[in-house]
Amino acid sequence: MSQMIPEKYMDLLEKPAFGNLGTLMKDGSPQVTPIWVDYDGKFVRFNSAKGRVKDKNIRRDIRVSVAIQDPANPYRYLEIRGKVVEITENGADDHINKLSKKYLGNPVYPFRKPGEVRVTYKIEPQKVSAMG
Amino acid sequence: MSQMIPEKYMDLLEKPAFGNLGTLMKDGSPQVTPIWVDYDGKFVRFNSAKGRVKDKNIRRDIRVSVAIQDPANPYRYLEIRGKVVEITENGADDHINKLSKKYLGNPVYPFRKPGEVRVTYKIEPQKVSAMG
Repeated sequence: MSQMIPEKYMDLLEKPAFGNLGTLMKDGSPQVTPIWVDYDGKFVRFNSAKGRVKDKNIRRDIRVSVAIQDPANPYRYLEIRGKVVEITENGADDHINKLSKKYLGNPVYPFRKPGEVRVTYKIEPQKVSAMG
Repeated sequence: MSQMIPEKYMDLLEKPAFGNLGTLMKDGSPQVTPIWVDYDGKFVRFNSAKGRVKDKNIRRDIRVSVAIQDPANPYRYLEIRGKVVEITENGADDHINKLSKKYLGNPVYPFRKPGEVRVTYKIEPQKVSAMG
């Protein structure tokens, strides 16, 4: 069952606010890393590269959580818990460039490593909590 | 086995940099929330109140992860994975005031709710990753 993002907090997905993504390691322990994030109207999306820790974690267990803090007020934040319902390389290069534009103002992602395969992950929100 | 925080990144525990803490829900899925954090020379510490989601989660499963981003450069961060080796109410009121001083400049924590019981959690770092 999908849960909506409250309209009042939608700005957190529009502005360049960092997310912190929680995934599960092989032994079930949590892993947290900062991410860029956006919203396609239905899914909360982020982007990584094939073979990274969070990529491996999500392919093993699709349950994730992402906390997104307002850069203008860190006491205002969203926590979105849900499942990664799609993992795709289709459009992932365009997507990382779009995120680069959003977060860096650079329409071409500048940190790409040789041979890196970009991946887009789509989270279906199941439990959304808002603070502040 | 405890792992040290690299000296080069110790400033992230000294300055008012937010952490994002990952804990485990009852069903084993991840939960992430922003926290205030400090370091006592051995343990990474944070503070919450008895009965909150993260308090319940940690009492059930002591495995946590905390990502701490440099407010001056969000691409510079630490991820500390470890176990909560102590959960205590002793000194927890002083500790939340100390964190309030660090993060708000206010030596008395202003957000206390009536009847709230403060708790300090001490994380033994087991895997430390640094980026940027």
